[in-house]
Amino acid sequence: MAEERAVQEYGEETLVKEIPPKAADLSKWYTAACWKAELFDYTPVRGSIALRPYGYALWENLQRQLDDRFKATGHMNAYFPLFIPESLLMREADHVEGFAPEVAWVTQGGSEKLTERLAVRPTSEVIIGVMYARWVKSYRDLPVLINCWNNVVRWEKATRPFLRTMEFLWQEGHTAHASHEESAAEVARMLEVYREVAEDVCALPVVTGEKSASERFAGALHTHSIEALMPDGKALQAATSHDLGQNFARAYGIEFVDKDQQTKHAWTTSWGLSWRMLGGLIMMHGDDRGLRLPPVLAPYQVVIVPIPKKGSEEAIAALARQVRERLAKAGVRVRLDDRDEHKPGWKFSEWELRGVPLRLEIGARDVESGRVTAVRRDLGKGEDGAKTELAVAQLELGVHALLDAIQQGLHAQARAFLDAHRFDVSSREEFFDLLRRQVGFVRIPFCDDPACEAEIKSETSATTRNQVPLAQGEALTCVACGGPAQTLAYFARSY
Amino acid sequence: MAEERAVQEYGEETLVKEIPPKAADLSKWYTAACWKAELFDYTPVRGSIALRPYGYALWENLQRQLDDRFKATGHMNAYFPLFIPESLLMREADHVEGFAPEVAWVTQGGSEKLTERLAVRPTSEVIIGVMYARWVKSYRDLPVLINCWNNVVRWEKATRPFLRTMEFLWQEGHTAHASHEESAAEVARMLEVYREVAEDVCALPVVTGEKSASERFAGALHTHSIEALMPDGKALQAATSHDLGQNFARAYGIEFVDKDQQTKHAWTTSWGLSWRMLGGLIMMHGDDRGLRLPPVLAPYQVVIVPIPKKGSEEAIAALARQVRERLAKAGVRVRLDDRDEHKPGWKFSEWELRGVPLRLEIGARDVESGRVTAVRRDLGKGEDGAKTELAVAQLELGVHALLDAIQQGLHAQARAFLDAHRFDVSSREEFFDLLRRQVGFVRIPFCDDPACEAEIKSETSATTRNQVPLAQGEALTCVACGGPAQTLAYFARSY
Repeated sequence: MAEERAVQEYGEETLVKEIPPKAADLSKWYTAACWKAELFDYTPVRGSIALRPYGYALWENLQRQLDDRFKATGHMNAYFPLFIPESLLMREADHVEGFAPEVAWVTQGGSEKLTERLAVRPTSEVIIGVMYARWVKSYRDLPVLINCWNNVVRWEKATRPFLRTMEFLWQEGHTAHASHEESAAEVARMLEVYREVAEDVCALPVVTGEKSASERFAGALHTHSIEALMPDGKALQAATSHDLGQNFARAYGIEFVDKDQQTKHAWTTSWGLSWRMLGGLIMMHGDDRGLRLPPVLAPYQVVIVPIPKKGSEEAIAALARQVRERLAKAGVRVRLDDRDEHKPGWKFSEWELRGVPLRLEIGARDVESGRVTAVRRDLGKGEDGAKTELAVAQLELGVHALLDAIQQGLHAQARAFLDAHRFDVSSREEFFDLLRRQVGFVRIPFCDDPACEAEIKSETSATTRNQVPLAQGEALTCVACGGPAQTLAYFARSY
Repeated sequence: MAEERAVQEYGEETLVKEIPPKAADLSKWYTAACWKAELFDYTPVRGSIALRPYGYALWENLQRQLDDRFKATGHMNAYFPLFIPESLLMREADHVEGFAPEVAWVTQGGSEKLTERLAVRPTSEVIIGVMYARWVKSYRDLPVLINCWNNVVRWEKATRPFLRTMEFLWQEGHTAHASHEESAAEVARMLEVYREVAEDVCALPVVTGEKSASERFAGALHTHSIEALMPDGKALQAATSHDLGQNFARAYGIEFVDKDQQTKHAWTTSWGLSWRMLGGLIMMHGDDRGLRLPPVLAPYQVVIVPIPKKGSEEAIAALARQVRERLAKAGVRVRLDDRDEHKPGWKFSEWELRGVPLRLEIGARDVESGRVTAVRRDLGKGEDGAKTELAVAQLELGVHALLDAIQQGLHAQARAFLDAHRFDVSSREEFFDLLRRQVGFVRIPFCDDPACEAEIKSETSATTRNQVPLAQGEALTCVACGGPAQTLAYFARSY
């Protein structure tokens, strides 16, 4: 019923009744899995989704993991205005060219027609540049290390939950430094934070490197990214870290008097990660039964399902409550599903769909034996170790060990997939063939020439994802055009 | 210099050079104290402030206190779209009448002129109503208990940091229930959460009660509020909790099949608290030296200032670092100000201005005696107990005890002020006289007649802040008009 309304009212997606097999249609599987797990819902606002409580809890956990790392690296949070006057946006030429086509414009306030349009922020370099120009006077004011958690809007026609929405939630870091050496170090430091969060928190292996000129952030000197590989062989850009050089400092007047009494422009950076990361980890880890969430992020790490038996109801319920309380006290996010209106089998499916990493089943036999049955979500039914028994006496230790194992298990599976779908090739034919077949990351020695890059894209729909410089003294030729290679570059189609 | 730029570029405030005495000009004192403490800055966006890192840290601490209580009362967070199509906004007549004059409108997206204008949310009852209509089908889906942390926009000409800004940060809770009894209980529960956070977290005593019809939220059946009293005798509405009855459920179609198989409209509530609360606590607690922050909220609860002495630099620095580490380990938010470029006296003033509750001074004598000097921000210079010595051996205990005492000290001072500026009067002359003199809260038995209320407002500029019903069987007459009294009502001018 709700499924049909979703279609009738907003018509953005085909009917979501059952989750189709993942291998059959990744795109439909993805949308259906996200929707049925109640991560999001469509709204009457084109391109905008509602992030439902279960989805928001996932985002909150990711936020906390990132925020702790931002603070540990010396950053503080702040907040800047949602609206940016048009004249300000215009000051950095590359930036406005890149973003103007995507901007939503406020032209009226109350009954007043505005004399100057206000852009709804697509990103905040501009307004933050203006403010940093006010705050930075001396080298003693540097570095400025600020992060913002906010919402941004980029006008989009298509909607794909988390991966492509008109409005999205993200964080954007903005820093200013006294030298290029320091700002470049910041760019690298935050890229490493993203890499670590992708791998250790999201269980999502990534490749890191620098974007080509054509894929660079509008107004940046250098853009670095982390890129994950999705099951269909397409890359997902999961976060970016930008070296803005002195471009924004010049456009917005961020100047300081250095130790040598000279007035200089600051060197700035920006770096961002959005709820797109959630889309990536869902698409990568999920299976035909639904989501598989990494324990570090899962809203509920453990669900307890009592298996009722006539005459033992009270003993089972008492043990279930005891298990819940002990796990909660041990810092585990635990949910006891003691609803009467559903059978255990229904609950198993429900929590598998929602990706809870570990299920504890408690029945009459368990009460007697002092054990509970533990079922891992990262392993398939019947797979070795998927179902184990935990001694109640050793409950906390056992659950923590299993959650660690599941976190690592998901990462290992995704790592194995990435390794199996990453190719180093040395012939042009093989290169184009692999790209056309969308097999994953294909890496070549690359000339980094925009013309060569454009040809590859028009032939294969694949783009450079990111690249690293060749080792000094290494003389290789570009596999695509035969010219002198500058970098080792990953190519793939992308989301 | 920065002060002058603030004025030249944005012209929103008079020159902020020094903080004027609080008693001389509360309004100027307030703005100057907030600005010099680096809580906020003006921006080139009319009516919008930037929340600087120190201000945001204060907001984050308040968020955490609220969020923990929301979760403890069964709520989860979610996120809904920033934009609301005009046609949706129009469905609840009272609501649109109340909010339309304050709405910022998006009329263009990229190069596309929109066929329907999008409101930038002034509040989210509308879009959330539409979504709840999709999610609620059966009594089993109720209650829906959701909170949102987001930004909203209400078109304003004036700017007063935190108290009146076009865009502001807040939380808005939205719940749906099967009966009016349950929704009314929710309204009361969340009002009590706000009261507790005001008193125990912000050290801000408040009066609680229901708003009159003319002060009610647009579209609500009942609005309840907490109201604090500012040093100039004006009230500050610090949070509201609304009983929306079935108004929004009818307008947006939130229906469910109840246990009795009847289809019914849900009963909804909403409740909100914004960064305005920060403005209230700053205005109430601050003094001529600047902010005085309650320890529960302060970004830094303790600042350590070493007092250098030739020959003892290393011993002093080592003790300062030891104190910092021990306090951080004990969960205290601590900052060691070991900057070389400033003298201790400068640092004292700086951290007093920024409201740090407790200063620890560490000099050569302290190193020898195994004690540190502790200076409380809640007490005046030279006041009994303002300066004490703490044994380093008992550091953590001593600091925790002092922070508790400061939290209670600020609350007691504010409570004494409120008690001294709250009047129960029984003569019309005295009532009007006290209101005209803006002495604080003036409480009377009140008829709750909008005509009487309008007369009081036009004569005195004071409005009903909130009110409680008379005790059953109590027969009193309205002090203002002599008609039969319905309530005991607080009147005051307000922010």
